[in-house]
Amino acid sequence: MQIARVLGTVVSTQKLDTMQGVKLLVVQFVAANGELESRYEVAADRVGAGIGEWVLISRRAIAADPDGRERSPIDALVVGIIDTVSTDTGLTYSKKDEYRYLQQG
Amino acid sequence: MQIARVLGTVVSTQKLDTMQGVKLLVVQFVAANGELESRYEVAADRVGAGIGEWVLISRRAIAADPDGRERSPIDALVVGIIDTVSTDTGLTYSKKDEYRYLQQG
Amino acid sequence: MQIARVLGTVVSTQKLDTMQGVKLLVVQFVAANGELESRYEVAADRVGAGIGEWVLISRRAIAADPDGRERSPIDALVVGIIDTVSTDTGLTYSKKDEYRYLQQG
Amino acid sequence: MQIARVLGTVVSTQKLDTMQGVKLLVVQFVAANGELESRYEVAADRVGAGIGEWVLISRRAIAADPDGRERSPIDALVVGIIDTVSTDTGLTYSKKDEYRYLQQG
Amino acid sequence: MQIARVLGTVVSTQKLDTMQGVKLLVVQFVAANGELESRYEVAADRVGAGIGEWVLISRRAIAADPDGRERSPIDALVVGIIDTVSTDTGLTYSKKDEYRYLQQG
Repeated sequence: MQIARVLGTVVSTQKLDTMQGVKLLVVQFVAANGELESRYEVAADRVGAGIGEWVLISRRAIAADPDGRERSPIDALVVGIIDTVSTDTGLTYSKKDEYRYLQQG
Repeated sequence: MQIARVLGTVVSTQKLDTMQGVKLLVVQFVAANGELESRYEVAADRVGAGIGEWVLISRRAIAADPDGRERSPIDALVVGIIDTVSTDTGLTYSKKDEYRYLQQG
Repeated sequence: MQIARVLGTVVSTQKLDTMQGVKLLVVQFVAANGELESRYEVAADRVGAGIGEWVLISRRAIAADPDGRERSPIDALVVGIIDTVSTDTGLTYSKKDEYRYLQQG
Repeated sequence: MQIARVLGTVVSTQKLDTMQGVKLLVVQFVAANGELESRYEVAADRVGAGIGEWVLISRRAIAADPDGRERSPIDALVVGIIDTVSTDTGLTYSKKDEYRYLQQG
Repeated sequence: MQIARVLGTVVSTQKLDTMQGVKLLVVQFVAANGELESRYEVAADRVGAGIGEWVLISRRAIAADPDGRERSPIDALVVGIIDTVSTDTGLTYSKKDEYRYLQQG
């Protein structure tokens, strides 16, 4: 999985039937130093992620979902909202602190 | 999924039987700043996308389609035509506005 | 799929049983501006592509083939020989014209 | 598979049900010259890898696990802890020696 | 498939059960001009490849093997030892000649 920040949303009305009801988020990948990369992905969201949150993105070939609709042509999925990232160097993150930071800054 | 712009078409008559009747589009990937990248993909289209439209491209390994022909050797699929992309920075798009722009410019 | 030009062949006698009888081509990827990239792939050919022809390469995970031998460990497949590529800018190609060009030049 | 060094951990409480109980490690890829790359991956761990250890990462599409839960949306898996890497040039590693080095340095 | 040169071996004792008995080789990718790239892969070997040999690497998602153990988490497989690579430009190779070269140089 990759770490990404939720950037926005994509709306598509003319789409495959298997894509109906899928919430699509634009997420921007987070580099090892914690900065945002230029790379992004449009990922299906089933965990209720909000703008600005850091999430885990799985780009597995068969993006199985809890409802068993594993044959929908989705190649990227938000699998979790990140609370903390703890490493011995570089990439660190705390959802709680970012919210505090966002409210203060 | 990735966001891409429909650039043109590919015609191939000598091909695998499982590729018969598949409409092939050349799509160019759109960067996070909204500019066109040099990367492209030839994707199967089943949503009726037209030249210049922004679409969602899925590059999942098994590109299942609505007809259940999931074993055709297609590795990229147009899964939807994009109406709007809304983000808090950078990438934004409105199909309606682009059409207006294209008609005026 | 990606557009590539057939560059040559690979011969391997000591290989997995599931690879027996598979014709292997070296193909070089074609950039959006029509130039050859440095990237290449060794792809299985079942459409009878010849040296110098432009082909469509699928790199899907399970490279199903018409004979149903979908479990052979092939990760790249020539799925069609390209007749024409038509775009509103950049990448354009006509098999007929290239042959004429090759015969004249 | 790729060789990577275990850098830290990721905690996510709001996630897909199929992700419950999965231990998530941040691993940083190791280049051919033995240096750490900037690229990282969040991988599921089922072998008990610890911070600083070199591990083998599989990024196969269907990350099957020993419990047969192969449909969980995991696209990267720690499949083994590396004891030694031996090549005729460049990349070499010995888990035993690194521990000694870490204890001395 | 990609062309690579066998560089060395990886030993891992603490690993997933499905990885037991799998011989792991470090292979370095070969560029279109015949030079070694910095990119490498750790691939499972079932064809008995030796150090210095050029091999074909498949990185398909489900690396099926002759024994039908297709659910082991292997994402790269040595599928054949290369005898010759013949192209109209650039990449050319002959296993027989390289051995002669290695014995003389």
